Amino acid sequence: MVNCAARLPKPILLMNLQRPSGRAPDQLRPITLERRFTRHAEGSVLVSFGDTRVLCTASVEEKVPGFLRGKGEGWITAEYGMLPRATQERTQREAARGGQGGRTMEIQRLIGRSLRACIDRAALGERTITLDCDVLQADGGTRTAAITGAYVALIDAINGLKQRRLLKRDPVVGAVAAVSVGVWNGVPVLDLDYAEDSTCDTDMNVVMNEGGGFIEIQGTAEGHAFRREELDALLVLASKGVADLCEMQRQALAT
Amino acid sequence: MVNCAARLPKPILLMNLQRPSGRAPDQLRPITLERRFTRHAEGSVLVSFGDTRVLCTASVEEKVPGFLRGKGEGWITAEYGMLPRATQERTQREAARGGQGGRTMEIQRLIGRSLRACIDRAALGERTITLDCDVLQADGGTRTAAITGAYVALIDAINGLKQRRLLKRDPVVGAVAAVSVGVWNGVPVLDLDYAEDSTCDTDMNVVMNEGGGFIEIQGTAEGHAFRREELDALLVLASKGVADLCEMQRQALAT
Amino acid sequence: MVNCAARLPKPILLMNLQRPSGRAPDQLRPITLERRFTRHAEGSVLVSFGDTRVLCTASVEEKVPGFLRGKGEGWITAEYGMLPRATQERTQREAARGGQGGRTMEIQRLIGRSLRACIDRAALGERTITLDCDVLQADGGTRTAAITGAYVALIDAINGLKQRRLLKRDPVVGAVAAVSVGVWNGVPVLDLDYAEDSTCDTDMNVVMNEGGGFIEIQGTAEGHAFRREELDALLVLASKGVADLCEMQRQALAT
Amino acid sequence: MVNCAARLPKPILLMNLQRPSGRAPDQLRPITLERRFTRHAEGSVLVSFGDTRVLCTASVEEKVPGFLRGKGEGWITAEYGMLPRATQERTQREAARGGQGGRTMEIQRLIGRSLRACIDRAALGERTITLDCDVLQADGGTRTAAITGAYVALIDAINGLKQRRLLKRDPVVGAVAAVSVGVWNGVPVLDLDYAEDSTCDTDMNVVMNEGGGFIEIQGTAEGHAFRREELDALLVLASKGVADLCEMQRQALAT
Amino acid sequence: MVNCAARLPKPILLMNLQRPSGRAPDQLRPITLERRFTRHAEGSVLVSFGDTRVLCTASVEEKVPGFLRGKGEGWITAEYGMLPRATQERTQREAARGGQGGRTMEIQRLIGRSLRACIDRAALGERTITLDCDVLQADGGTRTAAITGAYVALIDAINGLKQRRLLKRDPVVGAVAAVSVGVWNGVPVLDLDYAEDSTCDTDMNVVMNEGGGFIEIQGTAEGHAFRREELDALLVLASKGVADLCEMQRQALAT
Amino acid sequence: MVNCAARLPKPILLMNLQRPSGRAPDQLRPITLERRFTRHAEGSVLVSFGDTRVLCTASVEEKVPGFLRGKGEGWITAEYGMLPRATQERTQREAARGGQGGRTMEIQRLIGRSLRACIDRAALGERTITLDCDVLQADGGTRTAAITGAYVALIDAINGLKQRRLLKRDPVVGAVAAVSVGVWNGVPVLDLDYAEDSTCDTDMNVVMNEGGGFIEIQGTAEGHAFRREELDALLVLASKGVADLCEMQRQALAT
Repeated sequence: MVNCAARLPKPILLMNLQRPSGRAPDQLRPITLERRFTRHAEGSVLVSFGDTRVLCTASVEEKVPGFLRGKGEGWITAEYGMLPRATQERTQREAARGGQGGRTMEIQRLIGRSLRACIDRAALGERTITLDCDVLQADGGTRTAAITGAYVALIDAINGLKQRRLLKRDPVVGAVAAVSVGVWNGVPVLDLDYAEDSTCDTDMNVVMNEGGGFIEIQGTAEGHAFRREELDALLVLASKGVADLCEMQRQALAT
Repeated sequence: MVNCAARLPKPILLMNLQRPSGRAPDQLRPITLERRFTRHAEGSVLVSFGDTRVLCTASVEEKVPGFLRGKGEGWITAEYGMLPRATQERTQREAARGGQGGRTMEIQRLIGRSLRACIDRAALGERTITLDCDVLQADGGTRTAAITGAYVALIDAINGLKQRRLLKRDPVVGAVAAVSVGVWNGVPVLDLDYAEDSTCDTDMNVVMNEGGGFIEIQGTAEGHAFRREELDALLVLASKGVADLCEMQRQALAT
Repeated sequence: MVNCAARLPKPILLMNLQRPSGRAPDQLRPITLERRFTRHAEGSVLVSFGDTRVLCTASVEEKVPGFLRGKGEGWITAEYGMLPRATQERTQREAARGGQGGRTMEIQRLIGRSLRACIDRAALGERTITLDCDVLQADGGTRTAAITGAYVALIDAINGLKQRRLLKRDPVVGAVAAVSVGVWNGVPVLDLDYAEDSTCDTDMNVVMNEGGGFIEIQGTAEGHAFRREELDALLVLASKGVADLCEMQRQALAT
Repeated sequence: MVNCAARLPKPILLMNLQRPSGRAPDQLRPITLERRFTRHAEGSVLVSFGDTRVLCTASVEEKVPGFLRGKGEGWITAEYGMLPRATQERTQREAARGGQGGRTMEIQRLIGRSLRACIDRAALGERTITLDCDVLQADGGTRTAAITGAYVALIDAINGLKQRRLLKRDPVVGAVAAVSVGVWNGVPVLDLDYAEDSTCDTDMNVVMNEGGGFIEIQGTAEGHAFRREELDALLVLASKGVADLCEMQRQALAT
Repeated sequence: MVNCAARLPKPILLMNLQRPSGRAPDQLRPITLERRFTRHAEGSVLVSFGDTRVLCTASVEEKVPGFLRGKGEGWITAEYGMLPRATQERTQREAARGGQGGRTMEIQRLIGRSLRACIDRAALGERTITLDCDVLQADGGTRTAAITGAYVALIDAINGLKQRRLLKRDPVVGAVAAVSVGVWNGVPVLDLDYAEDSTCDTDMNVVMNEGGGFIEIQGTAEGHAFRREELDALLVLASKGVADLCEMQRQALAT
Repeated sequence: MVNCAARLPKPILLMNLQRPSGRAPDQLRPITLERRFTRHAEGSVLVSFGDTRVLCTASVEEKVPGFLRGKGEGWITAEYGMLPRATQERTQREAARGGQGGRTMEIQRLIGRSLRACIDRAALGERTITLDCDVLQADGGTRTAAITGAYVALIDAINGLKQRRLLKRDPVVGAVAAVSVGVWNGVPVLDLDYAEDSTCDTDMNVVMNEGGGFIEIQGTAEGHAFRREELDALLVLASKGVADLCEMQRQALAT
């Protein structure tokens, strides 16, 4: 990633851009990762990306889904939820409505795939780790906060298994974090908050590992289709953001 | 309530009872009521009864259910949820299971009735206040913590309406709090935690107003049927507990 | 219960109270318990509390729910339903609406807990008895009628098991009946019908055993919170009512 | 129908056939139609075809489904249910299972179509009559008993409308009744009970009006395909049975 | 069937009847049976009855439903669906609505029963063949087209089993086809299209085997009840139509 | 896009790569777009990407969802389904299972967003066009085939509105097509079929407009995270593939 910034197309960056939050275009919101937020789960992290706060718990169960039974492999899965008043207007509770909606399913599938990408499931053994990501307060970027926090909860849960000597070898093959990027008022910006997200032209969620490899890219042109140059600029921003987030994960896990 | 203690049947109280938590039989767990825990809701309170932590939000909407439309009255309702890993073992997410279970419905109906008891719905006007009580961590007594916390969130929401001069007169007709009581190892005790709740003979949830009036009583003999003397002792304990909780609500609202 | 009436607070009783049905405050409605109302079930009782009519069947199945498998214990459970036109206005059929509502779940959980309280489940052996309580006609007090009738159906089913010599010892540890009490027009009254129930200030369902022990108490202040004196008066009334109902159960079972 | 019996193929009738119930091949079970069985519904009939007992209620509501709104026509619809222990083995409650099964839907659609065939919906005006048919005890032929009883409940409901002078002209265009016929042990028999129904080769439900016109015919070859001669014999039996049932409906309505 | 035509009541046939499609009263629509329409299924047939087009696939699975396990018998079942825009107006997708409606269930149960009638399930062995009938375009008669096409798909699937020598003896005991008949403008006609179906007085679906035996008869009087003479005429028409369809099935299977 | 090929990293392309289908790495499968496949829908296209066949219909309705009512804007939405035996093994019918799964919701949301990107919704007026994409046969790439085919169906539907002079101005702002790309055996390849899709390392679905602008990018690392160079190569392949598909759409619409 040494040369990435060099490839950032110059004309797009406006010097006088004023983000609603006053941040620089490539500046993350204040990030916190509070471990052991609740006490029952094997991993429990309250992650904040600014005003977005997501409680991520990792639960270890000594069983696997039917399609894996007897294969000697473990499973990592995720569920996502939003408290009804995490949002500006109250949204209906999905349990009361009778099921999870399309957006919820889309997000929890993304979280699950992302976390599976950093685990050697054979090394995990026949057990399941479920990552429950519940949004206490939403201000944009809940799915990227969820992935970033869930990784820390997952590591705590796996460390617990290691301490109890239940694993023969380390199943962790890398770190994973995620961030959103988008073109806002014509400028590529990092880590959109709700004010930006709801008015941006292009929105992309990028999941990467600590080595700069891409795990998931989901980009959507909200207003107009985005050009290859914009895409390149967004990927550079995302790489920088994820690198910073991985560093924060390391620090959080070191304490 | 002056003479209540006098009526507490003596032989039942064992001097050498040792509760798992080390508390005295008539001692509440440490209680906290943290207002403005999240920022979107008109009222938002994180209530803790020991390790039980419930996020209670009050959401004001300018509409009423169909059966009240055009009648000039408001509505107070509640929904209850439990994060999947609020419990010692992970419980399945109700949204994923396709609906709310019987226990959830029973509890949220209780919360709703309890809070309606302290509001003059005609004075509220045609609007609905929904109290969402989501358990972040469970250690017994989630429904009584929810009622006690939801009252504070409700008052915050109503104070917001008052400040915006949307109410002609005050709809609050009293304070409401709730506590559990039970017979544990033959001794009536106040505010059961999970260790006590799962092994007690009799369990009762009592909702009262600040004047010592009863709003809801739900008592269940888990082991053997309870005698009238036990019931009397439990009600005395509950009265004391609710009086203390009402005082804590007053203090929380005064800050 | 010898001295109970003596403790009934005098000033509350109005001599000239006129209940809609013309009954005295402590008078039950006409009660009937018609055994063998249908022929397939191991126990089948049509119970009437005045115009409230509930068909209670007990079904014996040689299996237990998963959480009890292999533990040598039996299970007692209940389901409750209301025919769509049991009520004054037609109510939507729950099967057509896609599931049981909160009120139904609350009631069937109450019935199940109440009946479990009179059975030694280890003596029952690994089998389940399901009590289906279906309201053919509703006029208030359907859940108390259901409990009272279901007890008789349950005993018939257990007697059948005894006659087939499938039980090593008697699993019945006591009788159970239930009645509602409430404060109507300021006066504590027994066994509310719909006309009273829909206009009363306080409503309480009390489940007791034949020895006067309390199994469930569920009291709700509909209008204003109830004082301890009212509660005491209501419990006295309930004790009297349940004692009468237990006697009627004995007579029905003796025929 | 004068010559029908003459066409009954002779060789099929075995003189020494012994039905489980001892009935003659063309003999109905004892039929009863008990009006005003419950008191809230505008029509309420307990119909018995032998041990099959179905409670049929007719509920009048002053509204029509969306597709009829503003067209000046009424609607007749039906819902069918089976109490869990109406059957020899307990069947799961549809409300608890989360919805109505295929058999239930098939039957209630049949009942609805059959009753609509005897009503001039324009004369009914913009109102809906719902026929709830709930099986209290099942012994074969529940759908034909339901149709036969629902007709009487429907007429009671319509007579109520007439008495309240809400109808400009009589919406009843004919009577409707139904009966099952089948080939049992090679012999065409009328009104199968469960013992016959579960072992017969061919099973047909026939809905007819009082004039001998066919409204619905639903025949199923359970064992082997049936020949045209068998079909003819069955239709003759059904015509006789429905004629008898229509006479019983007339008598029931005359009392 | 030799003498059937002779019994067709003469006065009903109008010489100058003009069907919307210009067909003679006893004339089928153009029928096509296109085998191997898709490649994954063991049998796959696109059947057309005029503009009605149904894709019928037969899927073989080496398992049986729970109620048949260990009995050495196979199972034949069917599912029916309609693409949302198979119809003139778009109909809501059942998967999006949360379940199959009554009409769908009624139809798929009919298809399943019809196909089971031509199979010796003991000879099939413990395996299930599922017939999925999905309507790509609807113009009346989708269920009769589905049965007729599903038979061909079923035979293809069974022939595959025979070629793999998985069957000890032939499970096919006969051919099955279906056609609708109805009284349209007072005239009995064969194979109603949508224009006729939506305006006819009487509508009957007849499932028969190649030997002229009846498997299912479902007749409904839409307008007025139908007389025995009309019924007889309709059955004659249906017999002719099914005989023709069976011949087309034979030809399709021979290519 | 002139210089794109030049940027394709050389070392990745293996000269001797043998795709299961024998295609070159940048070669699409045979594509067909068959318009007017069914007759009721305003647009109806059977699209084939090799053995993947999807029926795409466009249905115009003169109404909009609640959140758009009265705003003068139209709506474009999509639903996706898979016939049970479109796949190698039969998959359960979603309508029978009680709802749409996560994968289905994810896909139909993608299709809807993609098609909305090429329409000026204000110019469409207050009407909804629903694109139903039903997979008749699956062999990889069903969502990209669906988007590509649905665009043609959408244009046919809009042309119908134009011919009926219901639109003031043209709502079509561009063409949209989609293709999958992936790294298979270390080589970037275009338009993966099932054999490749199920064994590839990285899989990306790319939706673009005819001008080479990106509308959606969804990339997933199945095996290991993908490097920026791989991503670049994949985007070049996708650009080429979409350009070809847009040309085929033009040709199909010209006939």
